[in-house]
Amino acid sequence: MTSLRDDGPAALEWAAAFLERVRDLPVLAQVEPGAIRAALPPQAPERAEPFTNVLRDLDEVLLPGLTHWQSPRFFAYFPSTGSEPGILAELLAATLNQVGILWRTSPALQELEEVTLAWLAELLGLPAGLHGHLEDGASAGVVTALAAARAASPGKRVVVCSEHTHSSTAKAARLLELDLRVVPGDDAYAMRADLVDLTDACALVATIGTTSTTSIDPVPELADLCAETGTWLHVDAAYAGSAAVCPELRPLFAGWERADSVGVNPHKWLLVPMECSAFFTRRPAALRDAFSLVPEYLRVSDDVVSLSEYAMPLGRRFRALKLWAVLRCHGREGLQAVIREHVRLATQFESWVADEPGWELCAPRHFSLVCFRREGTDAENEELLARVNATGEAFLSHTRLGDRLVLRLAIGNAGTTEADVRRAWDVLRREASR
Amino acid sequence: MTSLRDDGPAALEWAAAFLERVRDLPVLAQVEPGAIRAALPPQAPERAEPFTNVLRDLDEVLLPGLTHWQSPRFFAYFPSTGSEPGILAELLAATLNQVGILWRTSPALQELEEVTLAWLAELLGLPAGLHGHLEDGASAGVVTALAAARAASPGKRVVVCSEHTHSSTAKAARLLELDLRVVPGDDAYAMRADLVDLTDACALVATIGTTSTTSIDPVPELADLCAETGTWLHVDAAYAGSAAVCPELRPLFAGWERADSVGVNPHKWLLVPMECSAFFTRRPAALRDAFSLVPEYLRVSDDVVSLSEYAMPLGRRFRALKLWAVLRCHGREGLQAVIREHVRLATQFESWVADEPGWELCAPRHFSLVCFRREGTDAENEELLARVNATGEAFLSHTRLGDRLVLRLAIGNAGTTEADVRRAWDVLRREASR
Repeated sequence: MTSLRDDGPAALEWAAAFLERVRDLPVLAQVEPGAIRAALPPQAPERAEPFTNVLRDLDEVLLPGLTHWQSPRFFAYFPSTGSEPGILAELLAATLNQVGILWRTSPALQELEEVTLAWLAELLGLPAGLHGHLEDGASAGVVTALAAARAASPGKRVVVCSEHTHSSTAKAARLLELDLRVVPGDDAYAMRADLVDLTDACALVATIGTTSTTSIDPVPELADLCAETGTWLHVDAAYAGSAAVCPELRPLFAGWERADSVGVNPHKWLLVPMECSAFFTRRPAALRDAFSLVPEYLRVSDDVVSLSEYAMPLGRRFRALKLWAVLRCHGREGLQAVIREHVRLATQFESWVADEPGWELCAPRHFSLVCFRREGTDAENEELLARVNATGEAFLSHTRLGDRLVLRLAIGNAGTTEADVRRAWDVLRREASR
Repeated sequence: MTSLRDDGPAALEWAAAFLERVRDLPVLAQVEPGAIRAALPPQAPERAEPFTNVLRDLDEVLLPGLTHWQSPRFFAYFPSTGSEPGILAELLAATLNQVGILWRTSPALQELEEVTLAWLAELLGLPAGLHGHLEDGASAGVVTALAAARAASPGKRVVVCSEHTHSSTAKAARLLELDLRVVPGDDAYAMRADLVDLTDACALVATIGTTSTTSIDPVPELADLCAETGTWLHVDAAYAGSAAVCPELRPLFAGWERADSVGVNPHKWLLVPMECSAFFTRRPAALRDAFSLVPEYLRVSDDVVSLSEYAMPLGRRFRALKLWAVLRCHGREGLQAVIREHVRLATQFESWVADEPGWELCAPRHFSLVCFRREGTDAENEELLARVNATGEAFLSHTRLGDRLVLRLAIGNAGTTEADVRRAWDVLRREASR
């Protein structure tokens, strides 16, 4: 029988050694579709196997199929870091196996979630007194926001967003059968406030740090428009929100304190392992109007409102434990240092691209993402990207801006050093010159 | 700085010692609302703290606020077990910190999820070839099923369920703006198939193992009705589904192989830590019709359909790793042994209640839940329950059947022995006789 005493040390050793060697592993998995599946047995075993078999197959079967999000040269999408306090907290959370349904099914889970969300709001410069809770991801957060907005605005069925808003808004609107009204972006990929029409709109989704370019919608102006029309303003700061821990970056977040709801993903850029997405609102009653439903078998007399009344899931795992551990074991200063270094490295990379003939920058840099391309056709850039990623030395992704394919280098892993960014740049230039 | 090498052993020791002592801790947290919150600082620390502080406060601050789902005398709601292979797999999953967005962002995550779901389907006697994926919970699964059903049945806006269907169906119907048509239950709390009206219905939600009593809806008849009318049949077997690992219990699942979709929660009764909810469907194309949306920055040429195209979330954590570890380290025989023992213990408890004057059974027992009450008023039973739970020796919950309050004793923790059930019964009789 597997036990923490007998098998824990080997699992821990595997984990610690993995973090030490991840830097040397190919960043993007270099396997063909189906290869991992083919290497696994078609059925579960009849009899119990030792946990050592799991560790063995993790190395022998699964490892080649992992794309290494923990690698310091993961520069695709938005990188993330599962930092060590968060990893150990996940061990503890799984051990405790709390199920937050009602307050009493885990008072510590509910109250720690409320407290750590208040800590996070303070760290980010958000107003005091917001309701905060954790969701699995920003997609769920957009559903929560739009469902509350829909319930708060009877008869209004339009969601306004920009052409650069994350696809989760369109997906949520489809789920909720709301109509999407897409506003064009300006030359800096920010929503054109002058083109916003809030007629029949229940919600406007503004983004601070869009996925393609980290562009910033004009939140103060949009908040004015929403205030005039009583439209729910949801600010999606899933990636960039963590950067508000640095006071010098706060001007980029102007206006978000006026939002009806805000989403920030500590699992993206605040060193918390997947999944940990923070949802803040100054209108918790609207969430309860949309979601609260207490059946008889859950009715108790303690008069505490359960977190399940604010969103779709009934039971929740002890996600707050890892957020708590990460905020404590890095501290405000530690978190600021990581964000500042990432922004500095992105600025550095940006200057290298700017100074190099044959390369160009393609969008303003606000945080830790640089959008750029090699002079030439889309096909050439696409092929360049594929060649770079095939080396396993670095992993970048792309987007399309206007009619052009653009490369993205996003910095967000806590282990990334200037040497890692330099190496990515070397690989890019080397592959481009072939 | 926290590290797995320096701090992991203490965290592991805490976890192992916790599992050894959880049996002796009060099952239901004996704290007042707000007590945990009041014991926590109002802000995150400025500077990094050592991880030992987290472990210290876990003991000193949080522990009194935990309701012990890992206790062998947790008999409320449906108990669950985070078993040791699953706990260690969570340590590994947090270490790897995979983010499943596209196939290529973690081929091993996607293919292991597909393979373990196929293993699970085989273990449960479900048909081969079903699409399977993991969600965080059954609430999300019902949303997935109803959204697919709605998309597959234009113009039909009714969801049919029974008065005993879990509240997540009503919550999902509200989210999707579908009308709920609630069918009465019979004397055994099963849906009255003769009263089912599928006019304008896009979906029928049938339950195998309802929350209040584990009653079983007549799935074969309901499947016939759904087949005649082209109505999506979703079978909610969140709790009971795991029991299908035992062939002798399969007759209770008759008809579920004909469902359009089936939900089973391995985090409830299959020893997997929170959160791990399996969703199976024979109509994956309908899920993609409802959910697939691929923006440019995620467009790649590998031609592999991502799991994000089958449900609401875009990114997913490596949930399959714990399911894989649990299925391997317990094996089919180990899982069967746990389920069989729980059913045997419930049968035992049922016989004690039946034989004891002044107590009565209140619903047929199908799995590991016994519904019962003490002769007397609802208020007396409610007070009895509160007294039992206040002892910390056992934790039970209640439901309401017809016009009566009924007590529920549910067996589902892997550590529960006959002595634990006996002790709960002793406490019940002791408190009742005061």
